[in-house]
Amino acid sequence: MARSRSPELGPQKPYCSIERALTVLADRWSFLVLREALLYDVERFAEFQQRLGIATNVLTDRLDHLVEAGVLERTEYREPGSRARPAYVPTSAGRDLEVVLGALQQWGDEHAPREDGPTMVRRERGSSAPLRVGFLRDGDSSVPLEQVEFARS
Amino acid sequence: MARSRSPELGPQKPYCSIERALTVLADRWSFLVLREALLYDVERFAEFQQRLGIATNVLTDRLDHLVEAGVLERTEYREPGSRARPAYVPTSAGRDLEVVLGALQQWGDEHAPREDGPTMVRRERGSSAPLRVGFLRDGDSSVPLEQVEFARS
Repeated sequence: MARSRSPELGPQKPYCSIERALTVLADRWSFLVLREALLYDVERFAEFQQRLGIATNVLTDRLDHLVEAGVLERTEYREPGSRARPAYVPTSAGRDLEVVLGALQQWGDEHAPREDGPTMVRRERGSSAPLRVGFLRDGDSSVPLEQVEFARS
Repeated sequence: MARSRSPELGPQKPYCSIERALTVLADRWSFLVLREALLYDVERFAEFQQRLGIATNVLTDRLDHLVEAGVLERTEYREPGSRARPAYVPTSAGRDLEVVLGALQQWGDEHAPREDGPTMVRRERGSSAPLRVGFLRDGDSSVPLEQVEFARS
């Protein structure tokens, strides 16, 4: 039974894997930064900031934390005539969080809906049929992450 | 494109369904209270408190919030010779959050593992084969939530 305060384990590596995931997804801003990176391919500091309306120091802190946790990687981009600036792209471990974001999105649309219906759907590239997030047996057919597309409904 | 600060929408119902879900799962404690309720069938205030090591006022606040959000329902239990005390059981909307918790658990075990391996696995009742959380097409075979069991590995 996964107790969250097992003294012998220390705070660094909780026994419960949900808590370990939440150490990375530390707060609402972490989820939203990842949403921008994973679903909307946002890479640049200024674009994260503009889209999220997040304070500079908070955004810096969250990006650093997500890089340190291995879900984003820091790279650079350079516009003609400008100096290089940092950019942030999801790692493969980061990409796998699309399952978490997809599950949250599905739940939000089912149980906290807006009157105008679902705002985003998950689709297989090249198809218009919506995908669901759910529990699968080994060997059950499923859609690989690189084929999953988040689209406006 | 789901921007988080669309002024016309107001703060109550974010346009993005991920944000709406995060309004319910407001912080780490909300996730952990739900983990106890959904995965370990914890119902009583004192048991939540003992297992999580959470302050009374914080636990009261999170339980109230989860009841108000429609994911837990307040009922009562009474031990022989004692007065009735509140208990908290997941609603059907709450149950659906098992997909989110399962996705977090899977990610935590894959990408933030402990040396001693996965701590929990997801199984179909009556089977020892592990389940995965992933993206499914309409009509793909999947395991209904009531058949999903969270077990120590």
